[in-house]
Amino acid sequence: MSRTADEKAAHIAATLCRLEGTGQAWGIVIEEARVGYARIAMRLRADMLNGHGTAHGGMLFALADTAFAYACNSRGVKTVAAQASMTFLAPALEGELLIAEAVEQALAGRTGVYNVSVRGEDGRAIAEFQGLSRSVGGPTIPDGDTQ
Amino acid sequence: MSRTADEKAAHIAATLCRLEGTGQAWGIVIEEARVGYARIAMRLRADMLNGHGTAHGGMLFALADTAFAYACNSRGVKTVAAQASMTFLAPALEGELLIAEAVEQALAGRTGVYNVSVRGEDGRAIAEFQGLSRSVGGPTIPDGDTQ
Amino acid sequence: MSRTADEKAAHIAATLCRLEGTGQAWGIVIEEARVGYARIAMRLRADMLNGHGTAHGGMLFALADTAFAYACNSRGVKTVAAQASMTFLAPALEGELLIAEAVEQALAGRTGVYNVSVRGEDGRAIAEFQGLSRSVGGPTIPDGDTQ
Amino acid sequence: MSRTADEKAAHIAATLCRLEGTGQAWGIVIEEARVGYARIAMRLRADMLNGHGTAHGGMLFALADTAFAYACNSRGVKTVAAQASMTFLAPALEGELLIAEAVEQALAGRTGVYNVSVRGEDGRAIAEFQGLSRSVGGPTIPDGDTQ
Repeated sequence: MSRTADEKAAHIAATLCRLEGTGQAWGIVIEEARVGYARIAMRLRADMLNGHGTAHGGMLFALADTAFAYACNSRGVKTVAAQASMTFLAPALEGELLIAEAVEQALAGRTGVYNVSVRGEDGRAIAEFQGLSRSVGGPTIPDGDTQ
Repeated sequence: MSRTADEKAAHIAATLCRLEGTGQAWGIVIEEARVGYARIAMRLRADMLNGHGTAHGGMLFALADTAFAYACNSRGVKTVAAQASMTFLAPALEGELLIAEAVEQALAGRTGVYNVSVRGEDGRAIAEFQGLSRSVGGPTIPDGDTQ
Repeated sequence: MSRTADEKAAHIAATLCRLEGTGQAWGIVIEEARVGYARIAMRLRADMLNGHGTAHGGMLFALADTAFAYACNSRGVKTVAAQASMTFLAPALEGELLIAEAVEQALAGRTGVYNVSVRGEDGRAIAEFQGLSRSVGGPTIPDGDTQ
Repeated sequence: MSRTADEKAAHIAATLCRLEGTGQAWGIVIEEARVGYARIAMRLRADMLNGHGTAHGGMLFALADTAFAYACNSRGVKTVAAQASMTFLAPALEGELLIAEAVEQALAGRTGVYNVSVRGEDGRAIAEFQGLSRSVGGPTIPDGDTQ
C-alpha cells in the first residue's frame, strides 16, 4: 500500500532529523510535517544562550531553518536554502519550549519561499523568518526510504 | 592606566564569549576584536551538519551572528540584533575551520548595520550576512569588567 | 456615528495614498484595506521596466512596500519601515496588473512583521516580501482625518 | 583597440541605464561604474515621497537596486536579482541628492552578493542594502555593444 504525499513528507522530515547532526544535538522534536509544512519544537538550554542570558539569535535562526528544511524538502526533491532573513521580536528564556512553524508561501520552478514563525509555549511571537529555497535535483533521502 | 577603545572592545568580546552558553558549546575562538569589528573562528563538527551532510545553515548563521554580536557591542553599550539576513553561497564540510569577519557598515543613532562574511580556511566564500542592531542602553557587561 | 476599526484603517490607507507623491505617480489602487491588512494594485508601465525589459525590482519592492505601509499604519499610530527583504520569483511584463497583498504576521510592542505577496492577474507568484515595522508614536494622519 | 574590463563595465552600465524605463523616469546619473562596482546618484523629487513626506522606502530600494544591477552585470553576463534586503536608517528629504554605492562582496559560481550603501550628499547613512544575484547566461546587452 503506497503512502500519501503527506505521509511521505512526514517520513522525509523524520529521516532528515535522524541524519542531521544538529537534530539530536539540539533536541529537535517534530510535531507535524506534511507537504509544504513543518512544525517542530526545541527546549532552550543553557548552552543555547547568548552573553545577555537569553536565547542566542543563532539558535532561534537554527530552529526556524530546521523547520524550513523539512518543509522545503517535503516533496522528496533535494532542496537547499539559498537565503533567509530573521526578525527578532522578543527574548526567549532558558527552559522555554520554542515552537517553529514553517508554511510554504510560494513556489516558482525550482525556487520556493517559506515563512517560519517562532513562538513560545505561551504563544507570544519571538522571531519571524522568511527563507528562499532552491531545488538541486535528486532525492532528499535515499530512494528506498521514500516508499 | 586606562585601556584604549580597541582594548576595551577586545575585552568585551572575550567576556561575552565566556558568558555565552554558545561560545563554549560551539568552540568559538576570537581571532581579533576591536571597535566595530570582530573576526572569529569555529571548527565545523559532526553535530553541526544538516541532513545532507554539510554545514547546517543554522550553524553558519550562528557563527556570523556571534561575530556580529561582538562587533555591535564593542563600544560597551548593550546592543541586540533586531534583524539579520544570510545568503548561502557554498557548502562547508565537517572538520573545516570557518572564519566569520564582521565589519561595521553604518551607524545612525541607536541603530547599526554590520556585514559579516563567512569563509573557509582556503578563503572561499561560504555565506554572507547583514545584520541590523539596536542599542538598548546600559552596559554590555558589568561595569567593573570594562575598566 | 463612529467608524469601526476596519473603516478607520481603510480611511487611513486612502489618506496615505493621497498624501504620497508615489501613490499617484505609480497609479496605486487600493482594493481592500483593514486592520493589519492591505491589498493594492498597480499596472506595470514602460517607465517601470529594467534594462532587460521586465519589471524593475525596485518597482516590485515599491509596490509591496506601499501595501506594507498601509497595513502597518492601519491602527492610526505613525509607523515606519525599519527593514524589508524581497525575493524575486518570476519576471513581470509591461501592461500587467500587479497585486500586492500585505498580511500582519506578528506584533510585539512597537514592532511588527508583515508578509507581502506580489502576484500577477493570473495568480502566479512574482515576488515575496517580509517587512519589519516600528511605531514612532503620534498619529499616522492628522487627527481630524481619523474620526 | 579593445576596451579594458572596467571600460566595458562602464559602457554596460550606461547602456542598461539608457534601456531602462526607470533610468530616465528616476533621473539616474552614473557617477562611476567598473567591474563589480557602481556609484550612482538620484535627486529626490516630490513624486518619490511617502505619506509622511520623506523618501518612500520603495524609492530608496529602487535606487540601491539600480546600482546593484549595474555592478552585478558589469562582466557582461546577463544577471538578475534573486533576493535583496534593505535596512532604513534615516529619512531623506525632498530635493536631496542621494548617492548609492554598490560593492561586490562575494562571488561563487553563478551567484554573487553585493552590498549597497545609500547616503545623502552630507555623507549621512540613509539605508543599507544587500543583494543576491544570479547569472542567467547570455550577454547583458547586445554583443555589438560590448566591443
